[in-house]
Amino acid sequence: MSLTLYALCGADPARPFSPHVWKVAMALAHKGLSAQTVAVGFTDIPGIEAGATKTVPLLKDGETLVSDSFAIARYLEETYPDRPSLFGGPGGLATARLVEGWSQTQIHPLLTPILILDIHAMLAPIDQAYFRESREKRLGRTLEEAAAGAPAAIADLRTRLEPLRHTLRHQPFIGGETPLFADYIVFGALQWARTTSKTEILGADDPVALWFDRCLDLHGALGRSVTAA
Amino acid sequence: MSLTLYALCGADPARPFSPHVWKVAMALAHKGLSAQTVAVGFTDIPGIEAGATKTVPLLKDGETLVSDSFAIARYLEETYPDRPSLFGGPGGLATARLVEGWSQTQIHPLLTPILILDIHAMLAPIDQAYFRESREKRLGRTLEEAAAGAPAAIADLRTRLEPLRHTLRHQPFIGGETPLFADYIVFGALQWARTTSKTEILGADDPVALWFDRCLDLHGALGRSVTAA
Repeated sequence: MSLTLYALCGADPARPFSPHVWKVAMALAHKGLSAQTVAVGFTDIPGIEAGATKTVPLLKDGETLVSDSFAIARYLEETYPDRPSLFGGPGGLATARLVEGWSQTQIHPLLTPILILDIHAMLAPIDQAYFRESREKRLGRTLEEAAAGAPAAIADLRTRLEPLRHTLRHQPFIGGETPLFADYIVFGALQWARTTSKTEILGADDPVALWFDRCLDLHGALGRSVTAA
Repeated sequence: MSLTLYALCGADPARPFSPHVWKVAMALAHKGLSAQTVAVGFTDIPGIEAGATKTVPLLKDGETLVSDSFAIARYLEETYPDRPSLFGGPGGLATARLVEGWSQTQIHPLLTPILILDIHAMLAPIDQAYFRESREKRLGRTLEEAAAGAPAAIADLRTRLEPLRHTLRHQPFIGGETPLFADYIVFGALQWARTTSKTEILGADDPVALWFDRCLDLHGALGRSVTAA
């Protein structure tokens, strides 16, 4: 068993920051699997594994290549069924898609203006040029114009996280008494923020911040292996 | 086995409209259980079952009383384990809380201004007085002031439903190939709208509208047993 995880980094290869890669790093640790991490910049991605993917994470397990964080989590669940479950059964697997949808359509778009200039600043020069061009095209505005929305986004984000606060009034993790991949989905978003930006997004006593701290402590404090920005 | 479901109605006892009662009605049908429905107005609730609850749904199963829709779903899952599962395992049970949180903190507050005057109009006079006083106190504004927010709420709601559209790109129900209680949670919100108001909230070709139609067809078209407002 030889596992390799391609992980997005900036100029410092020791600081992976992609939310989707963090989901997979936590999923691997949850399964008790260790993988060699290979740091790649944005512009390295088309060259890895003979053009196997346009995005990371990319997991190589022996000769098998899997991209997309949710597909990787499913692959790990099917391939390593005797290790701790990432979904807690078929209902958890299905419902995790709504958690992914919530995180990606409601949380990520609010984090983008907050983090975008900090992410740009941590990239290698060749990746900075790629990032600026691709993100400005996607957003229809300059990075600086997008970043002007950060104060409003921070205020919105605090409200938009209410579904998680509601959940945490009933249980310590989205997965219940212990975490599941659904937790790692949302963890990935906040870890993206923690590893790229000094901006304070949550109050220290926010139940979401306390949950995020619990997630950082998981699996030998894997999440703390990269310090906060 | 004798089941009774106390369900909130307006002046017409044949038109239950509470989103939380609809969740339970669907959960009972999912389990293949039939219950006698007892229609109650808001001001009847303190008098039912010797003051057993401040809210409906209230389920009576033999001598057991359970209130709160999520607690009822858990009760049904534990009490009738050999019937079709409402959660698809422990992960589905836990993650359904986030779906509940999403529906109640992101969707319900946007439906409130859209529906509030229509709900008021369908109540019996004694319940109208209660509804106006309690809701105006809760909202900090008159019903009419709250309703002025309806156009903005409709626009917001279309965006706020993106997590469900994301899910439906992967599977026909939140529960996967077949529905689970997580589907009924969100169904309850849209059925609340369908049974109280003529306001068009979703475009006919919206994947959420198509999913809602699939939910209306479930369990002998139970949801269609009350016509649209």
